[in-house]
Amino acid sequence: MRDLFETRRWDGAARLGELTVPRAGVTVETPVLLPVVNPHIRTVPPATLHEEFGAQALITNGYVIYTSDEFHDRALEEGLHEMLSFPGAIATDSGSFQLAEYGDIDATTRDIVEFQYEIGADIGTPVDIPTPPDAGREQAERELAETTDRLAVAESVETGRMLLNAPIQGSTYPELRERAAREAYGTTLDVFPVGAVVPLLNGYRYAEVVEVVLAAKRGLGADAPVHLFGAGHPMMFALAAALGCDIFDSAAYAIYARDDRYLTVRGTEHLDDLEAFPCACPVCAAHEPDELRRLEDDGRERLLARHNLHVTFAEMRRVREAIRRGELLELVDARARGHPRLVDGYRRLLDDADTLERTDPASKDAFFAVSAESARRPEVRRHHDRLARLDVPEGAEILLTEGENNSRYDDSWRVVAPFGPFPRALSDSYPLTAEVPARPSLAACEAAVDGVARLAAANPTASFTLAHEGWPEAALAELPEGVAAYRLGTDGDGEGER
Amino acid sequence: MRDLFETRRWDGAARLGELTVPRAGVTVETPVLLPVVNPHIRTVPPATLHEEFGAQALITNGYVIYTSDEFHDRALEEGLHEMLSFPGAIATDSGSFQLAEYGDIDATTRDIVEFQYEIGADIGTPVDIPTPPDAGREQAERELAETTDRLAVAESVETGRMLLNAPIQGSTYPELRERAAREAYGTTLDVFPVGAVVPLLNGYRYAEVVEVVLAAKRGLGADAPVHLFGAGHPMMFALAAALGCDIFDSAAYAIYARDDRYLTVRGTEHLDDLEAFPCACPVCAAHEPDELRRLEDDGRERLLARHNLHVTFAEMRRVREAIRRGELLELVDARARGHPRLVDGYRRLLDDADTLERTDPASKDAFFAVSAESARRPEVRRHHDRLARLDVPEGAEILLTEGENNSRYDDSWRVVAPFGPFPRALSDSYPLTAEVPARPSLAACEAAVDGVARLAAANPTASFTLAHEGWPEAALAELPEGVAAYRLGTDGDGEGER
Repeated sequence: MRDLFETRRWDGAARLGELTVPRAGVTVETPVLLPVVNPHIRTVPPATLHEEFGAQALITNGYVIYTSDEFHDRALEEGLHEMLSFPGAIATDSGSFQLAEYGDIDATTRDIVEFQYEIGADIGTPVDIPTPPDAGREQAERELAETTDRLAVAESVETGRMLLNAPIQGSTYPELRERAAREAYGTTLDVFPVGAVVPLLNGYRYAEVVEVVLAAKRGLGADAPVHLFGAGHPMMFALAAALGCDIFDSAAYAIYARDDRYLTVRGTEHLDDLEAFPCACPVCAAHEPDELRRLEDDGRERLLARHNLHVTFAEMRRVREAIRRGELLELVDARARGHPRLVDGYRRLLDDADTLERTDPASKDAFFAVSAESARRPEVRRHHDRLARLDVPEGAEILLTEGENNSRYDDSWRVVAPFGPFPRALSDSYPLTAEVPARPSLAACEAAVDGVARLAAANPTASFTLAHEGWPEAALAELPEGVAAYRLGTDGDGEGER
Repeated sequence: MRDLFETRRWDGAARLGELTVPRAGVTVETPVLLPVVNPHIRTVPPATLHEEFGAQALITNGYVIYTSDEFHDRALEEGLHEMLSFPGAIATDSGSFQLAEYGDIDATTRDIVEFQYEIGADIGTPVDIPTPPDAGREQAERELAETTDRLAVAESVETGRMLLNAPIQGSTYPELRERAAREAYGTTLDVFPVGAVVPLLNGYRYAEVVEVVLAAKRGLGADAPVHLFGAGHPMMFALAAALGCDIFDSAAYAIYARDDRYLTVRGTEHLDDLEAFPCACPVCAAHEPDELRRLEDDGRERLLARHNLHVTFAEMRRVREAIRRGELLELVDARARGHPRLVDGYRRLLDDADTLERTDPASKDAFFAVSAESARRPEVRRHHDRLARLDVPEGAEILLTEGENNSRYDDSWRVVAPFGPFPRALSDSYPLTAEVPARPSLAACEAAVDGVARLAAANPTASFTLAHEGWPEAALAELPEGVAAYRLGTDGDGEGER
């Protein structure tokens, strides 16, 4: 069934995709957000989610319906789509959350998967075991084995054109996550949720979220649609999309609204702390915080939920646009400044620049160097690898300069932080067309020096001189032996003073 | 009249203020955005600006009305407020722009100021000379002298309760801007626009904008309301507010809409390049780019102007909220990632951390260290100055540690990048309550090492040992002679290996 997910554009490990959901007769564009609908509490009616917010799909809880006196029979008779009045794709969760919460549930994977099929779900879920972060290794292994068995059970159920989730567990053990992913990918199941990350997300443990998702991705093929289960806060959509997550779901929009919590792309605010709404959405453009505070609970909750949905869907559109234009890492960079833990997540992502590099397009519209972190982007890595393969003539004397050509040398190359040196002929090719700050950061200069070192190492008979506009001593100190350097505008031109 | 501007909260050099506009009988909350209304082209009617967008004030062009067959007499008869149907404060520009554009205008400062008074403007403007950036020094001086003369003329006109702008010119010469500001501040005029920065803004020359505004601010008292003339792009509101600008005006919302340009807080997009709207505003929540492209010109322009206004007003609310909560520099940090030139502007701002420090509150809710730039914030500077005054007992052996106390030493202080060391008793005081990334940047470690150096220099008889969790060698290399360092978890504990 893997041919149901088509990727149409990549940006690092992120991709724009189209997931065909055969039973719903729809194709959803990914990255996509599925609002969570609790059949018992419809803060925003599913029809509104579709018509006003453009929700292509939603997710509801199959186990809650299964155990509900009110909905069990109705769902079987009417089908989910009619019961919820929702024309898009409907995914159902299985009760794994309840299992994690209460230790036991009243249904087997077979029961639940069959029930999901019978009520007309478009994407169903087996009852996997959501091992929490920091679980003991033995527990994590044991529960993972159980999850794997349950995936096998799910595979054996006759489910027609319904797609099935193959959740990936393994707690905070990257090697278990990778193995779990490999096993899940080996089944005939269709969609690959990374499970039990909600405690990490709630604890702002973004570096570990990155770690766990990267591990799961290593076990999956590029054609596997990945759902980051329970990830609904817009502050981390860009980062998660950069990891290659395709599907998100949000219960947060409703749950947060109940507690007067207000989502933004920079974090969560409490209504009581706001004097003005820092947002342009229809709710915030038409109301003041004071007005909402004076409303009765229901009205306030409904408006806050609508605000939360507006920012959530807008950020998902922003992420899709950024991927399409090859600008996702710039968006991740900006979003990271919302919280120091997001910075940790971003830095952890860049530790795996090699992974991102593999699917990064050779050319994009623009590279914006906007931070110390930009110096560690996959494009810089790729340029450095190219430097290690560039030949200069035997014994040539090459000037690498931020300034003009200098005829005293056999050749003058340009040098731009964070990339380092390149022949002038490459000036018009990505990423050397980058927009960079006039004043490079220390990190950018260090990366450029690293580029010089790669070039020098590849060409031991040539001699190199770096002419810079006042790079910090800490960066210059890392120049390899034998590479001369001088500051432009001093009298060192060509003499190689350090 | 300076008592008409009250600052009620500071965040660095930024402030929340209230500007009383006596003739309008209103008080506007600053930072404030004045939409520019061209009486001939009302893309969005002034009444709508007030009712739907919450505009407290607008600005229109007194000279355009003065020279208009259609509006000159009407304005005199009806008054501006009735003619424009706008109940808030109305500021008028003077024709300086036309002067710059065409070299000459048909009116003197006296004519124009009197006319502005007669038509009922609440804030009027003399005809200053907007010397462009990069003008020759002699031209800049000559034109500044002329502007100064015209401010004196404006002072002499009887204008009742109308406030008057005292524009500050001086091209890209900081010392001229400072002198101009000092002279303007010495008049009886009321509001202080920094003029002729539009060419810098259009050229993304944000570092120079920062330079010029900082220079003007040096010549003004803290009680001077400052208008950054022509600054209407939301991508730079946070940076400009951080400089202490209080008043902004936007013609961009309408002019950009005419060319299908779409404002965002991360830059400008062209409608043709958008597949989805990366925004939550009422226009973007209800429409798709394709729909707008299919509309006739007028309808498209109106919707784009409304979008542009929504993001502009929302960003101004966001800036006010950020100042109120002491989080403006975090917002500036995020916004800087929209363009490398904004990064240059932000870095230039931090070069003047001393200036920001002077009006920065002693305590705020939170300090988020979110980038290499965070290490240069005024709070870090202030902590370092405090370190230089902290006494430790003569001859004491002090451990400065990222880890636990160690009883081998006379005392164990904490050390946190980017702040550096501090006695444990200060752990609960701002900014040492900061949220910092788990993995500090090189810049943060360097700042912390600088803090260690300040402390060691102030206490030459004491001995200090730094125990860190793996700081980069480039940072450790800058530790002063005599300060030992070891990495936690190695066997160096207390032995001071480097």
